[in-house]
Amino acid sequence: MERVYRLVISCPDCVGIVARVSGFISDCGGWLTEASYHADREAGWFFMRTEIRADSLSMSLEAFRERFARDVANHYGMHWFVHDSAERPRLVLMASKASHCLADLLYRWSVGELECDIACVIANHPDHESLVQHYGLPYHCVSFGQGREEAFAEINALLERYAADVVVLARFMQVIPPAMCQQWAGRMINIHHSFLPSFAGAQPYHQAHARGVKLIGATCHYVTEDLDAGPIIEQDVARVNHRHDSDDLVRLGRDVEKAVLARGLIAHLEDRVIIHGNKTVILD
Amino acid sequence: MERVYRLVISCPDCVGIVARVSGFISDCGGWLTEASYHADREAGWFFMRTEIRADSLSMSLEAFRERFARDVANHYGMHWFVHDSAERPRLVLMASKASHCLADLLYRWSVGELECDIACVIANHPDHESLVQHYGLPYHCVSFGQGREEAFAEINALLERYAADVVVLARFMQVIPPAMCQQWAGRMINIHHSFLPSFAGAQPYHQAHARGVKLIGATCHYVTEDLDAGPIIEQDVARVNHRHDSDDLVRLGRDVEKAVLARGLIAHLEDRVIIHGNKTVILD
Amino acid sequence: MERVYRLVISCPDCVGIVARVSGFISDCGGWLTEASYHADREAGWFFMRTEIRADSLSMSLEAFRERFARDVANHYGMHWFVHDSAERPRLVLMASKASHCLADLLYRWSVGELECDIACVIANHPDHESLVQHYGLPYHCVSFGQGREEAFAEINALLERYAADVVVLARFMQVIPPAMCQQWAGRMINIHHSFLPSFAGAQPYHQAHARGVKLIGATCHYVTEDLDAGPIIEQDVARVNHRHDSDDLVRLGRDVEKAVLARGLIAHLEDRVIIHGNKTVILD
Amino acid sequence: MERVYRLVISCPDCVGIVARVSGFISDCGGWLTEASYHADREAGWFFMRTEIRADSLSMSLEAFRERFARDVANHYGMHWFVHDSAERPRLVLMASKASHCLADLLYRWSVGELECDIACVIANHPDHESLVQHYGLPYHCVSFGQGREEAFAEINALLERYAADVVVLARFMQVIPPAMCQQWAGRMINIHHSFLPSFAGAQPYHQAHARGVKLIGATCHYVTEDLDAGPIIEQDVARVNHRHDSDDLVRLGRDVEKAVLARGLIAHLEDRVIIHGNKTVILD
Repeated sequence: MERVYRLVISCPDCVGIVARVSGFISDCGGWLTEASYHADREAGWFFMRTEIRADSLSMSLEAFRERFARDVANHYGMHWFVHDSAERPRLVLMASKASHCLADLLYRWSVGELECDIACVIANHPDHESLVQHYGLPYHCVSFGQGREEAFAEINALLERYAADVVVLARFMQVIPPAMCQQWAGRMINIHHSFLPSFAGAQPYHQAHARGVKLIGATCHYVTEDLDAGPIIEQDVARVNHRHDSDDLVRLGRDVEKAVLARGLIAHLEDRVIIHGNKTVILD
Repeated sequence: MERVYRLVISCPDCVGIVARVSGFISDCGGWLTEASYHADREAGWFFMRTEIRADSLSMSLEAFRERFARDVANHYGMHWFVHDSAERPRLVLMASKASHCLADLLYRWSVGELECDIACVIANHPDHESLVQHYGLPYHCVSFGQGREEAFAEINALLERYAADVVVLARFMQVIPPAMCQQWAGRMINIHHSFLPSFAGAQPYHQAHARGVKLIGATCHYVTEDLDAGPIIEQDVARVNHRHDSDDLVRLGRDVEKAVLARGLIAHLEDRVIIHGNKTVILD
Repeated sequence: MERVYRLVISCPDCVGIVARVSGFISDCGGWLTEASYHADREAGWFFMRTEIRADSLSMSLEAFRERFARDVANHYGMHWFVHDSAERPRLVLMASKASHCLADLLYRWSVGELECDIACVIANHPDHESLVQHYGLPYHCVSFGQGREEAFAEINALLERYAADVVVLARFMQVIPPAMCQQWAGRMINIHHSFLPSFAGAQPYHQAHARGVKLIGATCHYVTEDLDAGPIIEQDVARVNHRHDSDDLVRLGRDVEKAVLARGLIAHLEDRVIIHGNKTVILD
Repeated sequence: MERVYRLVISCPDCVGIVARVSGFISDCGGWLTEASYHADREAGWFFMRTEIRADSLSMSLEAFRERFARDVANHYGMHWFVHDSAERPRLVLMASKASHCLADLLYRWSVGELECDIACVIANHPDHESLVQHYGLPYHCVSFGQGREEAFAEINALLERYAADVVVLARFMQVIPPAMCQQWAGRMINIHHSFLPSFAGAQPYHQAHARGVKLIGATCHYVTEDLDAGPIIEQDVARVNHRHDSDDLVRLGRDVEKAVLARGLIAHLEDRVIIHGNKTVILD
């Protein structure tokens, strides 16, 4: 993969933004390899993501950042960042008893599908140690028998110690405390095993079976204080029928959960997701 | 299409039902062209649908019915019926302003996809008269300006006059009165423009847009007194993204609604749907 | 729908194109409502589509065209055009015996889904006259009994008389003569009832049934002299199984054909499709 | 999972088969938990699969087999078998360099999704040893540097030594010799990385990219002497676009391959697949 700088912007919409930004990049010698825009007419908001070949810039990334802030961003009230693809974010995976999402992400990471380093795996269950060790990664089992507060204090300490940038709840079946939700806003990704907003909360497959739906789903979203109500990144569904009992839904749902979490996480890691209010813009 | 008798059964599960039923059919000379079973272990309930070549039976359908009731059905406490595929049910279509489901079903009917006669179309909107006349069918515009009660009385009279067997709410945007729901239980089919149970009630596409979902859906279900909560026959979804506003969802949703309603209705007309509690068994 | 000018460009890739184009538009006062780019690394080719609010330009479209050619396009060797969304292309639909694609497009057109005028419908079959008249459009039945050459001469005369911009073969089951393919290159759209390149040529559903595939498909593509081998715009599939005979595949395939042709045509009419070699770039 | 006997039958169609078979089972005290039939009208052939609770039979499985052969099967010229779900088939997985299908099947097996024992993994590549050992399974690396014939002799010896019942080519990139195809007819399952019959043979993703298709696919089929032309068990597709180069197709295709192979293998292991000519009947 070629090294690129990814410039991601959102700001109030007005005339000339694309020209101003692309003119600035061009003046710096920047060669665009990808560029996407979106203007939300209702919200009056503009979103932009562009990839610049790292070796095409006539200055350091630091200098580019300073000049962009001074010459462009400040004039438009932009939320923005430039991310160097060579600086891989440090990801922490958290799991409970079910291991399908964990195993899937570890495999994808091992074959280079995920642009990140995995710092460690944290679980409230001891079973996944051998799996995680197979991939040469540290494994920490945090017991919730010691009390919820103590357990989350231990988790917080681990996240700090490993200098995590992104946290993925790969079927971690504990409700995250409000303070932690706030601290990790926009950087903590969950997979919920239903097509939200249907069947939020506990045992969504049992809820789905009781209602007699003909499709089951999974939803990848950012964690917020409102349970299962954060900005949605990705969703998908699978067909089921009357022959499937709750256990079958659990089994068939695994494949949807794995796929949806992986796609959502990849979009996040490639800096394609911009959160706006309680919704997301995903720029190809 | 070859003429068949369709025998549809549901009853408490026990050993030997298939043997008893298929033995009875065989003794009557019946040649099976299709047969499906389902045993719901949790509910302890058995479901069966079988198609018999009409010309293979050694007796009249009336005689078959009598003997089956006496020799088989009564011993197992069966809910059952035999339907002669040559007796096409009389269907009434009801619509409001949007015509996509109406136009789609009329076209499918005209090319022989629907095993029914369409008795007439009832709408609370005058716009579809020319479309319906193109297919040579009666069109009745019932005004809701006269009052809800009066309008539904007029509709009831029409359903009676046309001797309707099945009613399809092809985007008929009025809540059906409880008494009518009861009268037409299991014979009145609605298409709701969301993936239920998400976004029941009014303006589901606006609800979906506000929530930022990545898929929109449609649900075909039997009408019950609980709004949008009846037994689900069929569902499907379509992918949307941040570029789509509410109007786009309305437009993209049309294709899902048409497909889901058509598939659900075809399953009903082919006697493939058995309602059990608030769920459906769809026997292929 | 707001009036926009759509600027569509393809050219050899180099640094600074986006900046140059967007700077030019900005200098003309142009407000972008949509913009998409694609750089094909293998081919070294650049593709761009942008929508400009018509009322934001400080000059006439004619003046914009002249200046853009002089100041930008000529320097980059661009293939390009600007299309005013208020100038609706004139479309001619051609059909044979099957009417599902024809009926589907006429309905979509009548509810405003297609940004075009339909000039007339040409068929080699008399059956669709009443359908077409329902939509208030001229219908021409061209008999192939008079000889292929004569029939295509008649069709050519009709296309000329109606000043057609785009021709859609909505299941028109005649092979188009080479000269006509050349004349309409990039402006004649066909729906083929298989997932190409599988099952090109005649009776694709019978071929699919004989091979025992588990999915059937449809392909929307530009017509070229090589039968069913032109640039693909859109494809989709539907699930089938061993219970479906060839006639069932024909019936189930209709829904896929309708959807794929409509999506492909809409992309074409919104100037989203750029042909490059024998492939297409579809800019969202 | 409850222990069941699965009776799978195919034979020329005639009247009374279902009654005869289900009457026989009922006379033996057998309680059906699942039953599916299919009559192929064109071929005049009948297919049946039924599951009987093991504990409901009033005799041994051996005695059931003998009587069924004598009293039923011989009279109808049936191809048939009864399989005890407690006798798990012995499966051998074969892989080359790519490990995604291998890793996926090993994980599914470890969580109980596959009703089989995995006897060993054979690869022509040393890289997967640690992965396979993680699951506690024997790993054999067979070098093709020694010559094709020698390598396949070694593989044959391994299959014999491990008493394999089923062989799964989980992206094993060697053409299987004709004699081996014949020996394993109906018991050797391959995953091909295209939507067959499109793009058979080598490098299907490069072929797909060159053709500019909008969907890529995968096909699970039984191996026959005709390369990539055996009976198809399962297929699926994924959407791609102009932004994806061949490497992207390879990456995106992995998920389709994994899903399709797993679904096809599960259908085989649950005795749901009946081969008829060069096609399959999959009984739910």
